[in-house]
This record gives sequence, C-alpha cells and structure tokens, in this order.
Amino acid sequence: MRDMARGWRVDGSSIGLVPTMGALHAGHMSLVDAARRENDRVVVSVFVNPIQFGPGEDLARYPRSPERDLSLLRAAGVDAMYKPSVADMYPPSASTRVIVHDVADALEGAARPGHFEGVATVVTKLFAATCADRAYFGQKDAQQVAVIRRLASDLDLAVEIRVCPTVREDDGLALSSRNAYLSQPERQAAVCLSRALGRAFEAYGRGERNPDRLRAILREVIEAEPLAELDYAELVDPLTFSTPGSLAVLAVRVGKTRLIDNHDLRLPYPG
Amino acid sequence: MRDMARGWRVDGSSIGLVPTMGALHAGHMSLVDAARRENDRVVVSVFVNPIQFGPGEDLARYPRSPERDLSLLRAAGVDAMYKPSVADMYPPSASTRVIVHDVADALEGAARPGHFEGVATVVTKLFAATCADRAYFGQKDAQQVAVIRRLASDLDLAVEIRVCPTVREDDGLALSSRNAYLSQPERQAAVCLSRALGRAFEAYGRGERNPDRLRAILREVIEAEPLAELDYAELVDPLTFSTPGSLAVLAVRVGKTRLIDNHDLRLPYPG
Repeated sequence: MRDMARGWRVDGSSIGLVPTMGALHAGHMSLVDAARRENDRVVVSVFVNPIQFGPGEDLARYPRSPERDLSLLRAAGVDAMYKPSVADMYPPSASTRVIVHDVADALEGAARPGHFEGVATVVTKLFAATCADRAYFGQKDAQQVAVIRRLASDLDLAVEIRVCPTVREDDGLALSSRNAYLSQPERQAAVCLSRALGRAFEAYGRGERNPDRLRAILREVIEAEPLAELDYAELVDPLTFSTPGSLAVLAVRVGKTRLIDNHDLRLPYPG
Repeated sequence: MRDMARGWRVDGSSIGLVPTMGALHAGHMSLVDAARRENDRVVVSVFVNPIQFGPGEDLARYPRSPERDLSLLRAAGVDAMYKPSVADMYPPSASTRVIVHDVADALEGAARPGHFEGVATVVTKLFAATCADRAYFGQKDAQQVAVIRRLASDLDLAVEIRVCPTVREDDGLALSSRNAYLSQPERQAAVCLSRALGRAFEAYGRGERNPDRLRAILREVIEAEPLAELDYAELVDPLTFSTPGSLAVLAVRVGKTRLIDNHDLRLPYPG
C-alpha cells in the first residue's frame, strides 16, 4: 500500500482515503464520491479493527460483505482497496497506542472504554500507510470525527479531515452497518433517534436554548418508544464534546443493538 | 517546515531528520554527518520537549546554547533547523499522546514516569512535520532507541530509524548535554559508568554469561566510586528491553546529575 501511495505522491497525485470497516452502504459511498471529486487517487480501507471493540461487544458478528464491498468499490472507480489482515496490523510485538484525552473521555468514550484508543491508533496507521492528503468520515460518528480532528492536529499529520453529512433512510434512520442487526419491529422503533433529533431541532428553531429542556425533549421521544432504551442524550460542543453545546447526540439501545445519531441544532434538519 | 519538506519530496529528494534538544555536542554532530551521507536533505530539530521531563526534573535548567547550535549546524551544511515553540507544539487544546507499552515500562520508563510518552509523542510529531525518510538517534539513549523503533513499526510510519554509536570522551565518558552539570571532581567520578561497562565486557569476553554475575560486576565498579550512586544496572534485550539480554545498561547519579550509558556485550568495546 505504501509503495503504491508513494508512487502516486512522486507523480504529484493527491490521495483521498476513506477508512471503513466494510459492510458498505450508501453512507460510505457518499464519502467515496466526495473523495473522488477532491483527489486524484482514492483509497478505501476495509478493516474491522479488533482493538476498537470492547470485550462484550459485537466484533465476532460485525456484518461483513467482502464480495459486495469489492464490487461496489470497483463500480465507484476507486484506485485501491486497502484490506490488511489483523496479523499485519497488530503483530504480537506491537505495543503502541495513540490516546486522545478530553474529547474522547465522555459519552462514547465512557460507554465503550478503549474504543477511541483503538480508533485513534488504527486511523494514525491508515493515514501513514496510505500517505493520505485528505481523509473522509461521516458526521454520523460525531465524536469519532472530533477525536480524529484532534489527533491529526495534535500529531502534526499532514492530512485534511473532511466530514460528510449523515445519509438517512427515507424515514430518517441514519445509515449504519449495525442496522442489519434490527428485526422488523426494531427497525420501525429505531426511527425514534432521528425523530428525537427533529423535535429538538424544532424546539431550537422556536428559540429554546436551555440544555436541560432540550435534553428532556430528546429523552421523552426515546422513552415513548417501548423497544428503545436510552443510553445517553446530551448537548455538546461539536469540536470539544464539552457540555453544553449545539450538537445533540444520542445513543440508544433498540433491542440488543446500540445505535447512535446526532445533529447540530444550528443547522437545517433534513425531513 | 512541512511546506519545505513537501517541496523536497516533490523534487524527489530524500530527507534525513536528526531530532535534538539543542546543546549540541560531537555526539549530535556524528548523527548530522550520518544523515548528510545518506540523504539529499538534512533537517535538525532543536526542541527542549517539556512533556518528557517529570515534575522534579531539570527542564528549567537544561543546557541551552542557541547561537552555538546554529553556527555548528550552519558549518555542517544542514538544510534546515526546525525549532518550534512550545506553544506551537502543545497549544492548550492539544490532548493526544503516543504511548509505547512493554519496551518503555522498565528502567528509564520506571525511573521517569511519563518520559517515554513525551518522547514518543514529540518524535511522532517531528516525523510528520519533516516528512523524514530516515531519522538518526544515538545509541547512548538505548531504551529511547528501542521505544522509537517500536512506535515507527507499530504506527506504520515510513521512516527508517538509524542508530549511531555513542561518542565518548578520551577517558570513556559518553557525551551528553548533561555532562555540563558536573563539577570537576564529579566529572572525574563519572568515568565509572564506562569503566563498569568495560569490566562487564571483559568478563563477557572471558565467557561469563550469568546475568547476576555480570550485574554484580557493574554494581561493584559503581559502588567503588564515592561520588556515584547507582540507580540501576541491568542486562536486557536490546530490542525489547526484557531481561536477561546482552545489553548492559546503567543509570547512575553523580552528585545531583543523573547519567546513563550502555553497551551490547557482544560487540567490541572501545578502549
């Protein structure tokens, strides 16, 4: 991968990287489209990163669709799919971790200990291996975006972090590979996340700025859905993830599936 | 710095980096010479990295000789001196750290909590900012070398770590910016480190392989010197720093000055 990327660099080509864990959906492909528009070469990495999963999490059953991923990326005209093995990424002797404090501590960081350390480490490795000029992430994983912006800046990495809007189903559900876990009733219940964000957006539009009341609105919508259980609902600063702020963030269990979603209440809400 | 380095890359020039904390001596200049021989461009960074110093350590009084450093580097024909400010390297919002486990845990890592985290973080930043193809370090800081080799490999950084032999005074004392702290009697006492390594090397040459006995030899020489106090004497693997191994490592306080030295007993010992 690095030899190929360095060859492109010598040719003066710019390189866009789309890091994924595979199980590609239209959200990922919108990142690929953006990378295609803004770079001479596009690399999509496909790596289900074991160190960002906790002991009780869904590493073993995380959705995988290698043939479909490959044909989607071929059709999209990407220049390379980078698909390292776990043994190549983490040989037994490997002992280095990248840790982002503060922005990674709360919410997803608190709910999933070690998660952002795993994300920060793998992303640093992927940036280095692909010599990326720009890297593309979805707004759906808002805290991940904030963590990666922080580490790219803090480590002086010469990669521009580009963030693309969350892609949603017609009813508002944010696309996620984990949506594949949902039964039919759960799938219908899962719309409560985007509905809650929409309600908070409406209240914000009417002038509501009290974070407690905005949080209560989010909470009420989730609690009205019998199949859903709220993990957290918070209003945070979109860059630092400190409270309060204009970014409404939600984590909700629908059945056994943990879903996240978010919206910056200052921005138009789709639907 | 990065714009300059990227321009060199586009021209097809290779880049050698010599990271230093200034107070340059002949040991540093031997690294610069090696970098000059092996690269089209040479960058020397001069940065007294605050985060690698512990609370009770010598950050404030660490030797500084900016004019002399600059004229030495000018005379050596380096292409750039990279001298960032502390505020540029660590703005208040910065919260990312690179942590190397295992190899960084014992000896210097145990004696100086946070030291290698500071080293690993700044070195990762310097590698990124200078687009280095090769980076040059002195064998004198053997555990630092092992930590940096580990992180460069673990993070897939495209930088080759080059290690140059320790440069010594005529009486054997390893060059170090901290030697400037020594009074005249302490300077004479400080030769006990290289003398101890020499004795262990002689014993190894006579066939001694028992780590306890080799350690005892190191210890005896240091304890025979009234102005010296042993911090540690150990035999470790030069790559992993696990025990036992062929690398004899020493940390000794001479007066208030903490000095380190090492020698791989399998290799010829100078003097």
